[in-house]
Amino acid sequence: LRPRQGTRDHPPAQAALRDRLLGAVVSCFKRHGAAAIDTPVLELRETLMGKYGEDSKLIYELQDQGGELLALRYDLTVPFARYLAMNKVTNMKRYHVAKVYRRDNPATTRGRYREFYQCDFDIAGQFDPMIPDAECLKIVHEILSDLQLGDFVIKVNDRRILNGVFAVCGVPESKFLPACSTVDKLDKVPWEEVRSEMVGEKGLSPEAADRIGEYVQLHGGLDLIEQLLQDPKLSQNKLAKEGLGDMKLLFEYLTLFGITGKISFDLSLARGLDYYTGVIFEAVLLQQENEHVEELVGVGSVAGGGRYDGLVGMFDPKGRKVPCVGVSIGIERIFSILEQRLEASGEKLRTTETQVLVATPQKHLLAARLKLISELWDAGIKAEMLYRKDPKLLKQLQYCEDTGIPLAAIVGEQELEDGVVKLRDVATREEVRM
Amino acid sequence: LRPRQGTRDHPPAQAALRDRLLGAVVSCFKRHGAAAIDTPVLELRETLMGKYGEDSKLIYELQDQGGELLALRYDLTVPFARYLAMNKVTNMKRYHVAKVYRRDNPATTRGRYREFYQCDFDIAGQFDPMIPDAECLKIVHEILSDLQLGDFVIKVNDRRILNGVFAVCGVPESKFLPACSTVDKLDKVPWEEVRSEMVGEKGLSPEAADRIGEYVQLHGGLDLIEQLLQDPKLSQNKLAKEGLGDMKLLFEYLTLFGITGKISFDLSLARGLDYYTGVIFEAVLLQQENEHVEELVGVGSVAGGGRYDGLVGMFDPKGRKVPCVGVSIGIERIFSILEQRLEASGEKLRTTETQVLVATPQKHLLAARLKLISELWDAGIKAEMLYRKDPKLLKQLQYCEDTGIPLAAIVGEQELEDGVVKLRDVATREEVRM
Repeated sequence: LRPRQGTRDHPPAQAALRDRLLGAVVSCFKRHGAAAIDTPVLELRETLMGKYGEDSKLIYELQDQGGELLALRYDLTVPFARYLAMNKVTNMKRYHVAKVYRRDNPATTRGRYREFYQCDFDIAGQFDPMIPDAECLKIVHEILSDLQLGDFVIKVNDRRILNGVFAVCGVPESKFLPACSTVDKLDKVPWEEVRSEMVGEKGLSPEAADRIGEYVQLHGGLDLIEQLLQDPKLSQNKLAKEGLGDMKLLFEYLTLFGITGKISFDLSLARGLDYYTGVIFEAVLLQQENEHVEELVGVGSVAGGGRYDGLVGMFDPKGRKVPCVGVSIGIERIFSILEQRLEASGEKLRTTETQVLVATPQKHLLAARLKLISELWDAGIKAEMLYRKDPKLLKQLQYCEDTGIPLAAIVGEQELEDGVVKLRDVATREEVRM
Repeated sequence: LRPRQGTRDHPPAQAALRDRLLGAVVSCFKRHGAAAIDTPVLELRETLMGKYGEDSKLIYELQDQGGELLALRYDLTVPFARYLAMNKVTNMKRYHVAKVYRRDNPATTRGRYREFYQCDFDIAGQFDPMIPDAECLKIVHEILSDLQLGDFVIKVNDRRILNGVFAVCGVPESKFLPACSTVDKLDKVPWEEVRSEMVGEKGLSPEAADRIGEYVQLHGGLDLIEQLLQDPKLSQNKLAKEGLGDMKLLFEYLTLFGITGKISFDLSLARGLDYYTGVIFEAVLLQQENEHVEELVGVGSVAGGGRYDGLVGMFDPKGRKVPCVGVSIGIERIFSILEQRLEASGEKLRTTETQVLVATPQKHLLAARLKLISELWDAGIKAEMLYRKDPKLLKQLQYCEDTGIPLAAIVGEQELEDGVVKLRDVATREEVRM
């Protein structure tokens, strides 16, 4: 009976907390007008291959038992793109909350599992620039604020700016993606290590790496955007100029949303996945000195996303593109934080919603209990009883206290004779006959 | 882009209908005081093997990519039993709504898929006989009544009665399970075919088969229970006597619940799975002459379950038993029925909950829209806007009509100057300035 590596059961207390958390996230998605869709956990192996870069090796494949070659979905974005192409949908705002699967090294204390929930919100369609992108960032801001996870920053960058940087630093186009996935490690390791991977593993020239280093260590706000728009080299690069222009527009919209205080234009942000084509972003919780809870979990990315304008076209026989931008909320990390916080607070979450326990104080009254509880259920009232013929009243009241049931509906011989029920408030012990 | 066999995407309209359906089922489970748990889709291969009889061949296995040998869960009952044993839980009332996986021949028009939802409610623990069992039947009755699926019958039997029948008909104990899975086919094929499978494939004597035939074609109510309790052969069999005694008690409780009108004690009900040990039941929708909807889908089992007192013990190193009884709601078939009914009615289900569209009647007012919508979101109001810089007012109002948004909040140049918003009721075209 060993547990399976990197997966976990959720007992009732955890399931209740997770329901509450998912409820908050979904309610934000609905507030922004998204519709739900559902796609299968099982996808064709070929649908997933070639979409995740180096991480494709983490895809779970099913045994060939005859029929199609299947795999478990790795994220919700690729299935969404497959769905859009398959159904020729060119315009959609959807959310999807479901489990995804990765044969990764589990680090369960930091909320990293092999089977875990993703909560995605995406906007597909040809629209005016940066309006949907700004809404995705607003959503991240709303959710992280609502959940009161402490201070956070949302890093923003654009793949076009990064590619422009690579180009003006003398990196050949064929090495943009490898260079990108190396830059992505800057949030975990110092620049020196990233530089040596660029030069060693990825085969960039030391001079190119040094030039990249000067750019990717920059971060700031509107001022930095203006500065880079004036940069003699970058301003000559078409991609970078487009990216910077859109970044400026994005900041304008985020100012109207009143959230630029938490936004950082950060050139080191690269995001690992191959499919991003424009704006990318990632939200990070900031370490709080005085709160041991965050320290236990370790800070890290709790939301991320970006624009992927080419992915749907990869699934369309004619290559028709549907521009998309989306965000994924890292629910498992947030769950780990909330769980430890709940534990520290000593608060006990109710795992059921039962309003009343139907109880009897004497023996031979099972029939009365069954009749009354049946009436309550039929009236839509959440009711329980002990599955005993003749339970002691004390035991029945104890069950209420243990599980947080606020009321007991008591039918004894006297009540039966009088045609009434005694309703008892478990906490105050007040009783009324009705 | 072929669809994967036996799976399906749920577009928004279907997802909304399914949410409504699952909501009704879960709300019944909560009304009966159940807590939620969650277990992984991935289980160890060895956990699932040897639990499903002939159907074990339908289990999806994962490729051996190093590490543990994994499989996709086949139902929610075996993982629940594994959960109880692993956590030494001896007492629990839980529900679980999640997807399960079977490499079956899909028959998607009849709601039979390879990936599908199960909605399970189970009561684990040592209690007085038939009280939890009666509650499971009450739950089926409540759900099928609430969903207004038309007339139905809940067939009830007991594995101990069936085994008693086999014993008194001269079947050796080693052939009880094969005989059981043959009897289970009686709802689909006539007795002659079942008899010939018993004699041919399962190796029962023709005399034994004939004697079984006399019993398993019986069905009725309390009168049949009394009759069998007087049966000269059956009444001598310990198992059958126990089963019949409990069946009588069950009918007593179901009478108090007022639901015996829909219950049929049916000796042909056997249920396919190996793990049942006591009461078993299955709910069937009855064909309705005048409603073409049901005919399209085909009638069939929409809920089933029973008592499995030995399953948890199979996972406990010391074989400690935890008696369990539970019910599974066949949500996919019900969904197919509701879907066809919705289609026939022409009713259009809203797929979003948006309350208000933020609109502008003139050009160059994007900033005003972004500011207002941001305020609405922050106030918890479900709001959308078109992702265009300068959309035509007509287009914006058309979007409301297409998606069912009841209100439009309009800010034009005049409103901006006056510091007001014009709120328009999309259906009545009434407008108020506020």
